Amino acid sequence: MERVGKMELQKVASYTYAVEPAEVNAQGELPLTVLAQRILETATFHAESWAVGYSTLIQNDQAWVLARLAIEMQAYPRIGDTYVISTWIEGYNKHFSARNFEFAGKDGRIYGYARSIWSVIDMQTRTSADLTTFEYLAERISDKECPIERQSKLKPVQGEPLLAYPVRYSDIDLNRHVNSVKYIEHMLDSFTLQQYDEKYIKRFEINYISEARYGMDFKIYRNELDADIFAIDIKNNEDEAVCRGKVTFIPRR
Amino acid sequence: MERVGKMELQKVASYTYAVEPAEVNAQGELPLTVLAQRILETATFHAESWAVGYSTLIQNDQAWVLARLAIEMQAYPRIGDTYVISTWIEGYNKHFSARNFEFAGKDGRIYGYARSIWSVIDMQTRTSADLTTFEYLAERISDKECPIERQSKLKPVQGEPLLAYPVRYSDIDLNRHVNSVKYIEHMLDSFTLQQYDEKYIKRFEINYISEARYGMDFKIYRNELDADIFAIDIKNNEDEAVCRGKVTFIPRR
Repeated sequence: MERVGKMELQKVASYTYAVEPAEVNAQGELPLTVLAQRILETATFHAESWAVGYSTLIQNDQAWVLARLAIEMQAYPRIGDTYVISTWIEGYNKHFSARNFEFAGKDGRIYGYARSIWSVIDMQTRTSADLTTFEYLAERISDKECPIERQSKLKPVQGEPLLAYPVRYSDIDLNRHVNSVKYIEHMLDSFTLQQYDEKYIKRFEINYISEARYGMDFKIYRNELDADIFAIDIKNNEDEAVCRGKVTFIPRR
Repeated sequence: MERVGKMELQKVASYTYAVEPAEVNAQGELPLTVLAQRILETATFHAESWAVGYSTLIQNDQAWVLARLAIEMQAYPRIGDTYVISTWIEGYNKHFSARNFEFAGKDGRIYGYARSIWSVIDMQTRTSADLTTFEYLAERISDKECPIERQSKLKPVQGEPLLAYPVRYSDIDLNRHVNSVKYIEHMLDSFTLQQYDEKYIKRFEINYISEARYGMDFKIYRNELDADIFAIDIKNNEDEAVCRGKVTFIPRR
């Protein structure tokens, strides 16, 4: 990963990656899970460059928490391709900050965009901090365009669980909750390899609602809302949604 | 990731990484699975720098395949730590090449080492290429020391499967087989979070034997060889081992 220039006060920061052979999926493309990991990473790098990242906040027992994410792709970078992730703050209010992402080739070709919504929580009380006290955010808002639809509030999925299995060691992150990317992996694993051979994910949305822990089961509920559009809930043992997703496939040409 | 200098003919190549908040495990450490991913990545970078990497070999329908891996750690880099992976070729014969790794802090502190054994296979025939035809390898062997025990040939685990579940989309790599790192993840997920809280993995070994595909089930067999030493087989539907692992834990202080 190559960081472009000094980031300190850049409203839009750009980070360059290559798609490595060992990380691609069966279709030879950057998997959506790896892209989500890069989204988290570049958000961290940019916040760190402003001294509002993980290492600063943790001193006050605070941390950024991802609340919603929407990714929309025209195409995915393929094995050996280089891609540039640009990220910027669109705005913020008392409770949430909106951070956007652009995924482009070195030649300027656009792969897609993402929108994300974050809050800062107190790790002890689990209450959210007032972002308007982060005054410096105001002067760092960029008006760069993010031409994809905003995140929506996803609706519950009813019915019977499609799959159920325990939360495992590799699912658990630093906060001892399930890692944000692992929820996405579990949602995407409810589809078959053949579905990915025939179609690719045009748009993916996730709402993080509560937090799953070690010792719980994942219960995956899925419903086809329309042709190639799926709603997915991951619920806990009490049948409460821990997160909701929406996946829109389109046929490969 | 930061690459040190021009790599073209360096016998020992070094790559620098930081442990990102979004990738650590519940213990705040770099997970062994992420370390294994970095091992594959840095092997690829080094081979690419010599023009014997993925992008060159694939033109002849050939690819490097990992046969064995042994990792031995004194400690794991923790969240925010920077670590340097150095890699070099120890030797090779007709069938196999031996590549070693050192994991160190920026200050020279040693975290651990790894040994790996690779072959080059023809993607169509699945037969292995003669590495003695890769003449330039001879002049690139380094005598840098790797002070951990060699990989062993692991013995079969008998008994009943501990766990069984299907191979999923996220398990599958470019060759449409299970990703090398995902086998490790499944092995490590057979232990509880509490076991990782109390102990850490001192040594991990894996032998890759055959290849698991989509549509198969993972059947995990595990046997405690001695206190804190476990043998793990992943078998397919025909009860043939696709890979064998050995995990040695030691108590945390």
